[in-house]
Amino acid sequence: MTQETQQDWHALQTTLMTVTPAVFRQQFLTRHHWEQAQFFLALDQPQRLRLYEVLTPQELGDLFDDIDDDDAQIPQFLSEMTPQVAADMLGAMYTDNAVDILEHLDKISVRRFLARMPHATAAEIRNLLHYEDETAGALMTTDFVAIESDQTVGAALELVRASANDAELIYYIYVLAQNRLVGTVSLRELLANDADVALAKLMNQRVISVPVTADQEDVAQKVRDYNFFALPVIDDQQQLLGIVTVDDIIDVIDDEAISDYSGLAGVDVEEVAEQPLRSALKRLPWLITLLFLGMSTASLINHYEALVSEASVLAVFISLITGTAGNAGTQSLAVAVRRLAFKDQTHTAMKLLLTELITGVMIGVVTGATITVVVGVWKHNFILGFVIGLAMCSAIIVANLAGSFIPSLMERLGFDPAVASGPFISTLSDLTSVLIYFSIAQHFIHFFVS
Amino acid sequence: MTQETQQDWHALQTTLMTVTPAVFRQQFLTRHHWEQAQFFLALDQPQRLRLYEVLTPQELGDLFDDIDDDDAQIPQFLSEMTPQVAADMLGAMYTDNAVDILEHLDKISVRRFLARMPHATAAEIRNLLHYEDETAGALMTTDFVAIESDQTVGAALELVRASANDAELIYYIYVLAQNRLVGTVSLRELLANDADVALAKLMNQRVISVPVTADQEDVAQKVRDYNFFALPVIDDQQQLLGIVTVDDIIDVIDDEAISDYSGLAGVDVEEVAEQPLRSALKRLPWLITLLFLGMSTASLINHYEALVSEASVLAVFISLITGTAGNAGTQSLAVAVRRLAFKDQTHTAMKLLLTELITGVMIGVVTGATITVVVGVWKHNFILGFVIGLAMCSAIIVANLAGSFIPSLMERLGFDPAVASGPFISTLSDLTSVLIYFSIAQHFIHFFVS
Repeated sequence: MTQETQQDWHALQTTLMTVTPAVFRQQFLTRHHWEQAQFFLALDQPQRLRLYEVLTPQELGDLFDDIDDDDAQIPQFLSEMTPQVAADMLGAMYTDNAVDILEHLDKISVRRFLARMPHATAAEIRNLLHYEDETAGALMTTDFVAIESDQTVGAALELVRASANDAELIYYIYVLAQNRLVGTVSLRELLANDADVALAKLMNQRVISVPVTADQEDVAQKVRDYNFFALPVIDDQQQLLGIVTVDDIIDVIDDEAISDYSGLAGVDVEEVAEQPLRSALKRLPWLITLLFLGMSTASLINHYEALVSEASVLAVFISLITGTAGNAGTQSLAVAVRRLAFKDQTHTAMKLLLTELITGVMIGVVTGATITVVVGVWKHNFILGFVIGLAMCSAIIVANLAGSFIPSLMERLGFDPAVASGPFISTLSDLTSVLIYFSIAQHFIHFFVS
Repeated sequence: MTQETQQDWHALQTTLMTVTPAVFRQQFLTRHHWEQAQFFLALDQPQRLRLYEVLTPQELGDLFDDIDDDDAQIPQFLSEMTPQVAADMLGAMYTDNAVDILEHLDKISVRRFLARMPHATAAEIRNLLHYEDETAGALMTTDFVAIESDQTVGAALELVRASANDAELIYYIYVLAQNRLVGTVSLRELLANDADVALAKLMNQRVISVPVTADQEDVAQKVRDYNFFALPVIDDQQQLLGIVTVDDIIDVIDDEAISDYSGLAGVDVEEVAEQPLRSALKRLPWLITLLFLGMSTASLINHYEALVSEASVLAVFISLITGTAGNAGTQSLAVAVRRLAFKDQTHTAMKLLLTELITGVMIGVVTGATITVVVGVWKHNFILGFVIGLAMCSAIIVANLAGSFIPSLMERLGFDPAVASGPFISTLSDLTSVLIYFSIAQHFIHFFVS
C-alpha cells in the first residue's frame, strides 16, 4: 500500500465515523468497487458496523462482488450485519459471486439467508449451488441478456438498455428459439446495424458454448482460444443456463497455475505471508512422508555397506549420481505435467513415453560420457570413471522415464497428475539411482580396487 | 482435434481447391477467426497460396489476429504473399498484433512492409515498435474509442457506432480534455442514459490507468484487481497512448505462469511435443552446469574419504540427508519466488527471511527428531541417530534459508528470481548438507565407532 493510499483511507475512515452519511457516501461511492472492497477489508469492527448502516444492501453487494470469495473473514462480516441486510446484500450481488460466498457457509446459514430473499433470486441461487465445484456450472452467472430469435436489432438494444444495471455482461446478446440457444449477437453488431434488422439474419449461428458439466480448465481454454469476454453454458438440451465471464476465467487460470506450481514444489505456495508455525505444519507431512521413502534408499545403501567399506571412493559419488538423476527427472516431470494439462491430443501416452525415453538416452549418454572423463582424469582411473558414467547414464534414463510415466499413471488412476511432485520424483529417483549405482559398482569393483 | 473437425476441414480444403471462391468464402467466413486460423495453420503451401487469393487482406488480417505471434512459421507465410498483400494484411490487423509480428522480422522486411502501408498506419506501427518488450507499451493497441469531454452521450454513441468495425474494444469510451485522459464512460452507461446528457457529468473521473513503461506483470495485476476488459495506457503528460485488452493480459498471465513453472523445474516446459534431440539439447546445458556444481560436493566427500573408510555407515545416510534438505529447500524456494512475484509489500525482505528461518528451525527440529529415533532404533545406536538427526536439522535450516534468500538476491542483482531453479537449490543444498553432515560426524565419530 502506498503512503498516499494510507492517508486517503485514513481520511475516509474519519469521515465515515464522524461526519454525516451523505458526505461519506459522496466521497466513497465514486471509487471503484475493488478499491471500496480494499478499504472495507482494512476497517475494524466498529467502522464496519457503521458502514453497513451507511450503505444500501446493493452498494454493499457491489463491494462484496470484488472481495475474494475465499476470504476467511466473510462469514464474520455476514454475522455482523442484520440477517435481512446480509440476505438483501447477497441477493443484490451477481449470482455467481453470491453462490461462491454461500458455498463457504454451513447449510443452516444458507437456508436462513435464502429464506429472506425474493423467491426468484433464492431459486436461482439454490439452483447454482447444486453444480459441482470446478465446473462451468459452478463458475457461471445467470445475469445475462437473452432474447427470442424473432426479434429485431431495435428490440435487442431496448433489452440491453433495460438490463444495463443488472446483467453482469451486456456485450453479448444470446438468441433463443424455443428455449434453445441458437445464436449470439455482439452489442458491437447491434450498434452497427439498423433497428429493423431481424436478429435471425444478423446472429452468429455457430455458437461456441460449454456444457454445464465441463471442467473449468476446458472452459478457460475455450476463452483463451476464442478471445471471448464470456462463454454461454448450456445443458444437454441446448438450453442456455448461464454465462462464464472472463474475470472468473482469469481466477481459474491463476488457480491452476498456482496448483501446478505448488505440486511441482511439494508445497502449497498460497501459504504466502502466513505464520511460521502454520507454514511448518503444512510442509511437514509431505517432508516426513518423503523422509520414510528416503529411508528405503538408506537401507539399500546399508545393504551395500560391505562394498563401501571395501571401496570408500564409492561414497564420493552417491550424491552426484542421485542429484543429477533427480534433476533430469524433475525436468521430465515438469514437461509431462504440462503436456497432460494441455491434453495434447496429437500425442498418445505411448508416443510421449517413447519421446522421453529417447531424450533420456541422449541426455544420459552425454552426461555419462562427461562424468566418465572428469572422474577418469581426476582419479587417474578410467574404469572407475566408466562405472560412475554408466551408473549416471542409467540412473538418468530411469529417472526421466519415471518423471514422464508417473504423472500419466496418476491421471489414469484418477488423481491430479501434479500430485507426483518434484520432491517425490527426486526422492524416488534417489532409490533407483542408488540401486543402479551399486549393482554396477559391484560388477566392476575388482577392476578399480587394488 | 476431433474426427468431426478433421472431416469438416478436409471438406473445406477440397472446396478451397476445387470450387469457385464464392462458395468457399461463404462456408469459411462464418467461422470464428480462431477456427479460421487453426484451419489455415493446417494447410499445405499450395492451399495457402490459393487462400491468399481467395480472401481479402482484411479477412486474412482477421485470421492472422488469432495466430499466436510467436508462431515460427509467420515469416514464411508473409513471404508467400505478394509484398502488397502482406503489407495490406498487416495494416488491417489490430495494431498490437501487427507489431507483435513485425517484432519477429528483420529490419529490412519491416521497413519494406511499412513503406507499402498507408502513412498513418505505418506511423502508428512504427511508434509502437519502439516500446520495450514486456511493458504496457508493447502490449497496447491504438485501436480505441476516445472523445472530447465537452461532448454528449449521443455524440459518444454515434462515435461508437462509427468505430464499431475498427476499434478493438468499444465497451469503454475514453474521455479527453486538451489531449489528457480525464475520464472513462462504459458503453453500458451510455446506453442507460439519454442522448443529451453531458459526458463530463456522467464520466468516471477516477481513471485507473498504467504508464506506458509499466511492467506487464503490473498491468496484469491491475486487470485482475479491477476486473476490467481493458486498461488505458498513458504517458507522463497523462496523454492516452493506447489500451491493453484482457485477451492480451491472459497471454501475459499464461506466459508468467509457464516461466515460473519452467524456472522451478530447470527446464523450458514450452518444449512440449518437440523432437527428442531438441529437447535433449535444451535440457543438457543446465544439467551439465549442475553436474559441475555437484562435482564440488563429490570433492568434499572425497576430502572426508578417510572418515567414510573408518565408518562406512556414514555413507548410508548421505542421500537421505541431502535429499530431505533438498526437498525442504525446494518448498521454501517456491514460496519465496511466489512472494516476490506478488511484490507483497506488507513484508520486508528481512521479515520474510526471519519467517523462513523460524519455519526452517521448526521443520528441521521435527524432522531431525524423527530421524534420530528411527536411526537409533534401527542401528541400536542413539549417538549415531543423534548425529544424523542433528545433521539433518542443520542441513534443512540452511537449505530453507538458501531457498528463500537466493531468489531475493537474484532479484536484487537484477535477475529473474525464477533463475534460482529447484534443481539449482537442491544441488547447492547437497553441498552444504554434506559439509554439515561430515563436520558433525567428525566430531562424534569416536562415540559411535568402536
